[in-house]
Amino acid sequence: MKKILVINGPNLNLLGVREKSIYGNQDFLSYFEELKERFSTVQLEYFQNNSEGILIDKIHEVGFEYDGIVMNAGAYTHTSIAIGDAIAAIQTPVIEVHISNVHQREEFRHHSFLAKNCRGVICGFGLDSYRLGIEALIV
Amino acid sequence: MKKILVINGPNLNLLGVREKSIYGNQDFLSYFEELKERFSTVQLEYFQNNSEGILIDKIHEVGFEYDGIVMNAGAYTHTSIAIGDAIAAIQTPVIEVHISNVHQREEFRHHSFLAKNCRGVICGFGLDSYRLGIEALIV
Amino acid sequence: MKKILVINGPNLNLLGVREKSIYGNQDFLSYFEELKERFSTVQLEYFQNNSEGILIDKIHEVGFEYDGIVMNAGAYTHTSIAIGDAIAAIQTPVIEVHISNVHQREEFRHHSFLAKNCRGVICGFGLDSYRLGIEALIV
Amino acid sequence: MKKILVINGPNLNLLGVREKSIYGNQDFLSYFEELKERFSTVQLEYFQNNSEGILIDKIHEVGFEYDGIVMNAGAYTHTSIAIGDAIAAIQTPVIEVHISNVHQREEFRHHSFLAKNCRGVICGFGLDSYRLGIEALIV
Amino acid sequence: MKKILVINGPNLNLLGVREKSIYGNQDFLSYFEELKERFSTVQLEYFQNNSEGILIDKIHEVGFEYDGIVMNAGAYTHTSIAIGDAIAAIQTPVIEVHISNVHQREEFRHHSFLAKNCRGVICGFGLDSYRLGIEALIV
Amino acid sequence: MKKILVINGPNLNLLGVREKSIYGNQDFLSYFEELKERFSTVQLEYFQNNSEGILIDKIHEVGFEYDGIVMNAGAYTHTSIAIGDAIAAIQTPVIEVHISNVHQREEFRHHSFLAKNCRGVICGFGLDSYRLGIEALIV
Amino acid sequence: MKKILVINGPNLNLLGVREKSIYGNQDFLSYFEELKERFSTVQLEYFQNNSEGILIDKIHEVGFEYDGIVMNAGAYTHTSIAIGDAIAAIQTPVIEVHISNVHQREEFRHHSFLAKNCRGVICGFGLDSYRLGIEALIV
Amino acid sequence: MKKILVINGPNLNLLGVREKSIYGNQDFLSYFEELKERFSTVQLEYFQNNSEGILIDKIHEVGFEYDGIVMNAGAYTHTSIAIGDAIAAIQTPVIEVHISNVHQREEFRHHSFLAKNCRGVICGFGLDSYRLGIEALIV
Amino acid sequence: MKKILVINGPNLNLLGVREKSIYGNQDFLSYFEELKERFSTVQLEYFQNNSEGILIDKIHEVGFEYDGIVMNAGAYTHTSIAIGDAIAAIQTPVIEVHISNVHQREEFRHHSFLAKNCRGVICGFGLDSYRLGIEALIV
Amino acid sequence: MKKILVINGPNLNLLGVREKSIYGNQDFLSYFEELKERFSTVQLEYFQNNSEGILIDKIHEVGFEYDGIVMNAGAYTHTSIAIGDAIAAIQTPVIEVHISNVHQREEFRHHSFLAKNCRGVICGFGLDSYRLGIEALIV
Amino acid sequence: MKKILVINGPNLNLLGVREKSIYGNQDFLSYFEELKERFSTVQLEYFQNNSEGILIDKIHEVGFEYDGIVMNAGAYTHTSIAIGDAIAAIQTPVIEVHISNVHQREEFRHHSFLAKNCRGVICGFGLDSYRLGIEALIV
Amino acid sequence: MKKILVINGPNLNLLGVREKSIYGNQDFLSYFEELKERFSTVQLEYFQNNSEGILIDKIHEVGFEYDGIVMNAGAYTHTSIAIGDAIAAIQTPVIEVHISNVHQREEFRHHSFLAKNCRGVICGFGLDSYRLGIEALIV
Repeated sequence: MKKILVINGPNLNLLGVREKSIYGNQDFLSYFEELKERFSTVQLEYFQNNSEGILIDKIHEVGFEYDGIVMNAGAYTHTSIAIGDAIAAIQTPVIEVHISNVHQREEFRHHSFLAKNCRGVICGFGLDSYRLGIEALIV
Repeated sequence: MKKILVINGPNLNLLGVREKSIYGNQDFLSYFEELKERFSTVQLEYFQNNSEGILIDKIHEVGFEYDGIVMNAGAYTHTSIAIGDAIAAIQTPVIEVHISNVHQREEFRHHSFLAKNCRGVICGFGLDSYRLGIEALIV
Repeated sequence: MKKILVINGPNLNLLGVREKSIYGNQDFLSYFEELKERFSTVQLEYFQNNSEGILIDKIHEVGFEYDGIVMNAGAYTHTSIAIGDAIAAIQTPVIEVHISNVHQREEFRHHSFLAKNCRGVICGFGLDSYRLGIEALIV
Repeated sequence: MKKILVINGPNLNLLGVREKSIYGNQDFLSYFEELKERFSTVQLEYFQNNSEGILIDKIHEVGFEYDGIVMNAGAYTHTSIAIGDAIAAIQTPVIEVHISNVHQREEFRHHSFLAKNCRGVICGFGLDSYRLGIEALIV
Repeated sequence: MKKILVINGPNLNLLGVREKSIYGNQDFLSYFEELKERFSTVQLEYFQNNSEGILIDKIHEVGFEYDGIVMNAGAYTHTSIAIGDAIAAIQTPVIEVHISNVHQREEFRHHSFLAKNCRGVICGFGLDSYRLGIEALIV
Repeated sequence: MKKILVINGPNLNLLGVREKSIYGNQDFLSYFEELKERFSTVQLEYFQNNSEGILIDKIHEVGFEYDGIVMNAGAYTHTSIAIGDAIAAIQTPVIEVHISNVHQREEFRHHSFLAKNCRGVICGFGLDSYRLGIEALIV
Repeated sequence: MKKILVINGPNLNLLGVREKSIYGNQDFLSYFEELKERFSTVQLEYFQNNSEGILIDKIHEVGFEYDGIVMNAGAYTHTSIAIGDAIAAIQTPVIEVHISNVHQREEFRHHSFLAKNCRGVICGFGLDSYRLGIEALIV
Repeated sequence: MKKILVINGPNLNLLGVREKSIYGNQDFLSYFEELKERFSTVQLEYFQNNSEGILIDKIHEVGFEYDGIVMNAGAYTHTSIAIGDAIAAIQTPVIEVHISNVHQREEFRHHSFLAKNCRGVICGFGLDSYRLGIEALIV
Repeated sequence: MKKILVINGPNLNLLGVREKSIYGNQDFLSYFEELKERFSTVQLEYFQNNSEGILIDKIHEVGFEYDGIVMNAGAYTHTSIAIGDAIAAIQTPVIEVHISNVHQREEFRHHSFLAKNCRGVICGFGLDSYRLGIEALIV
Repeated sequence: MKKILVINGPNLNLLGVREKSIYGNQDFLSYFEELKERFSTVQLEYFQNNSEGILIDKIHEVGFEYDGIVMNAGAYTHTSIAIGDAIAAIQTPVIEVHISNVHQREEFRHHSFLAKNCRGVICGFGLDSYRLGIEALIV
Repeated sequence: MKKILVINGPNLNLLGVREKSIYGNQDFLSYFEELKERFSTVQLEYFQNNSEGILIDKIHEVGFEYDGIVMNAGAYTHTSIAIGDAIAAIQTPVIEVHISNVHQREEFRHHSFLAKNCRGVICGFGLDSYRLGIEALIV
Repeated sequence: MKKILVINGPNLNLLGVREKSIYGNQDFLSYFEELKERFSTVQLEYFQNNSEGILIDKIHEVGFEYDGIVMNAGAYTHTSIAIGDAIAAIQTPVIEVHISNVHQREEFRHHSFLAKNCRGVICGFGLDSYRLGIEALIV
């Protein structure tokens, strides 16, 4: 049974946890339950943290053992060479995902320090980006 | 029955048509047959051309009628404001896909004039990027 | 009798041909009829194409014989050194026109590769930009 | 009867006033007389000043009352955010005009701080640029 | 009674805590006591941390409940898109403050990733910048 | 009794003088009256001009005698090295203020040629920015 | 017998075909006849087109079969990543040639998207650049 | 008898007029008296103003009649395309001078919009730069 | 007896701890034992963490008491103004070291936000860079 | 009999002189003998030096007398404005040649300070570039 | 008696030595004789070399003993940090001079690595620039 | 016995040779004597020159025979691609050293054209940088 970790970076804890009227109808954890049902033959886990260093710790922890990581690093995507290095250092393939189409946003969100070291990138499909990321890993 | 058009831009006609030893084991048209089998409930069509203007003509032709376009514009991705404008002008949603992880290639391949007007972007998964693009449209 | 050619570049075929509710009430061809009536002492012709090379072919074809060209090169304005070279190579004066005020749009639409080789530039007056372009040629 | 003000910025007072052999055969004021004759149904006025602040004062003075301004801001076009702001603040539409084709001159003359806030831009037609500017306003 | 949180980012814990001869005569905590006295009708709180992620956690914690945040993010001002996003995500208004006049320092301190999402910016008034920040919130 | 001059630069004369429906409910002069009442122990004066040179003249005139200047230089903030030099040349401390949060506007409004020579900068608090500027001077 | 194709890109059809007084005394086709005489042991062919896509088609067509291509891509040299990709994709070596010394012309003509994928570059020798290109191939 | 005008731009009125302890021991006007004595066979005049437009007016006024202008445009050197244009428009040769060595100051003082249109540039010799400027004109 | 702290930043915990076949034969801790033997008259300590904030905490903790810090900040070298500020704020001298020659790697690894505030920089000598760093401190 | 000088710049003395196993099978001097045989009707000479100034001296020495120079300036191509000026100052035409295709190497090798002043440029054909350079001169 | 050295850098040996019809009527050495006559109370010497290192040697040789250096470093002005450092290292003041107005030439001639360390700069007065340089030193 | 050459580039001959009061107490040659005593088992030699070409000659001369080079190329570090190429061409490893911490100096001293081809870089330790460079070679 394949083991895949979904990682969310800074500010993504606010998704659907509180102020749902603002952040969309759907709670990320309930969406994650849907994902687990859909991919019942995969062992899916979830991790969220706002700290760059703790995200690196987690990547190290699973990166020689899991079969895949689907990672939305939020704003660290655009500033963290260190997370990019962590991804380069491990053996587990990583898929970079984004909920929004980052190319429609500010100029400084068009560059990723992670993408070069990831297997691929998926952005712009709302929460469905995570589902497609898992699809890409279990092909 | 949903109608989806897969468009390939310049140089992508060489994929698997000749010199398979160089361009990969798989012929794009035979891969496209697999896609049609997989998505048997979708009406899939394929179009390839090396000319910017003819790609624009095709986008106009289907863009008010089809349910989705999965487009790999090849090198025009990075130079064609005109294709970007064509995508913005139509009603059909477009998914930008790339076979390779463009972020691992030359600097000038990191910017896309299309992405801003597409629903989303998928890159780096080999031919499987096309499959994921169709998945994203039929959700 | 002066001969003047109006050239429209990529995506401008969509103007008023279909989806009028989106692209304005007026069909370009019916507008062009108005222009012909207004400038009854001028021989006005019209050409539209989405391909850079075919636009160059047309510029060569008329460029040693007509008295003026009013050209809206659309997105090629910002990317085509080749059309700029074609304009430099011919004898007929060219007026660059734009329907919208390009300075209110994206940064990459502020630069023109054609303007340097044109007699002048007119932008921002809606369809009336074409009329002013003809006025400038028949002074 | 429409009221339109023609404004000339720095150094344009030298046009045809003295040293006609250098600055062209035609005196701007005599050209302005021709304009008044041509547009006999419009109330045309003329203002020239070399000072940025005084040009702003004039724009404020007429900008809630006149029907149009045709403005050649000369070199301030490329340096004055303040004149650009003045144009944005008023209600009267402004047409930016230039005698020469600024795209054939130094790089620093290719950018305008005014254009974004003007209705449109006309450049490269010699003194005839002013005539076309008025045409565009009285359509 | 209004609730306002003062947040200090990296290295600001050294202010007046030790080596007062270097970092100024005044201990920040004793200065904070003065602030509390001055604004006796406001419930003032203080938080300092050197970690980007923990500052984000705190912003989330208070950002839907407090009436204002006065934040000196120190060096993270210039590198953290993630803190900027956190400020954009909450409801509580944030005032960006700096002790020194950052415009007199290195070029890389002139740009802020936070300012765009803050209500306003105050810099250059020494510790008094914090007092002015509170004033701005309780207007 | 401290003497403080409030200086407004180009286009700020339009604030609340005419077209109040557009420029906000409050007339700057009536707001200035409020300021004078609030700071009854300070001798407050007001000066506005649209010309760079006349603003410099005024800075020279008061700059060796007054106790402070609160200056909103409007668009000259971003283009005038000369006003920046004038501030550097005088003895009176200057506070740079802006009504809007300039960091939320165009890129070219993010840089100030004045800030380096001012004691501090306050922006984004509406008219209240002027009040905070005076507060900072009379500490 | 070696097979070599000479390809000319946009606007080069005007060379010596018409307006010889402008474009030089020599017609390219008559020059090409001279080349064929000079290299009588080589099978020389000629192709010209103004369209980027058709040039790519031709490169594909001969690129797995001919012994060499001498290509003057004109303005597409500086804008076409797609032609550069086509050259990289084929097996036939390509020599980039230019009639003029492009380094004496506008800044935007100093960069080539083709050169990196060509065997070598020859520029500045007038029509003789083509002869030298063939020499380089038949060494 | 040659007529030469010395022009000083913004903030240079403060030189030695007041606060001599700061701006050097010597009053510019007393220095100018020395210049007049030294160059007794030249008709020397002096003009200072802080406004860009008024400096342009003065350049126009003398620029077809005087034998030379020695101009220290202060900060306008680095921002005024309009003064540069005024110098280009007149017949009188202009020498750009600076008291300080501008290359030892901020980056933005290294570029001059005037220099291109001046006969020559002299900087870094204190007040003696003016004397050298006059020497250069009366050679 | 001198006290020196060796600090390793993000991802450097992977050095020789696991996957030795990839990360070199030598475990950092066993290398550190060698260092302690070699510098038997120095009190050497070691600290590693992946979090920017915790590295700052540690620098503060020892920075007024130890005799030297040898720091390999990994990827934070290129992004962390905050660590650079922490180094500037303490009294203990810091030596920046790198295992690889960073100048042979990506462009974004050529700039350091720490170097300016360190006593010196040593890079490219493999693990021996740490030994040289200690040498430099105990001279 | 035409006199042509071949000049090699810095580091090109190492070509085939020593360490032939590294620098290619062929000694430049023996290659030069081949060139002399091939062009038996031309008086060919050779000069190599590692110093910029001595290369300039040599260019001056022959530049009013020889019929051509074929120059590989090595790394000075990319840094020496002075050699570029020397080429501009002489009468003898200069052909810039490079052994490797500089466009496939580092970014800083893509720009030449010499090319603008040379008759033409030939690069990428190995030692054969020198032969083609001579061909271009004796046409 | 003051000792002043005039130094000319690369390519300036061609001035008036040969090809006078091209490089001006006047031989630099005969001009230098005029200078010696004019400044009969100064001990004037002359040195020219095309090599950067030899120019540095000469600056070192006289730089602790002579009263002044008037230096036209030619193209090294724009590329040599080393000559700039040499000027900074000596005690003798250096005046940078140029024959032409470098601001009217290519962009890369607008920046000087020497100017910052020179007392002043004089350019654009033909050979008279040297005379003015000496004047500036003997004031 | 290992043979190591210490090379000093431009202006470093002034170190402690003359004007010791300015350039530090220690003469480089006497320091070099200390180095020779310290490393009595190494054959140390010293070479200094101000010319780029002669430094390249020396690098070639020893670069296939010595065991190491410790090089302080002074200002050529930042401008000489040719010295960088020379280092790449030889077999002897080179250590780049600097006396000062170049990162605390002007922006243009932060980039090195040599570093990429050196084994490592050491800067900021005063003369001790040379000692550490030798240490690194004899490990």
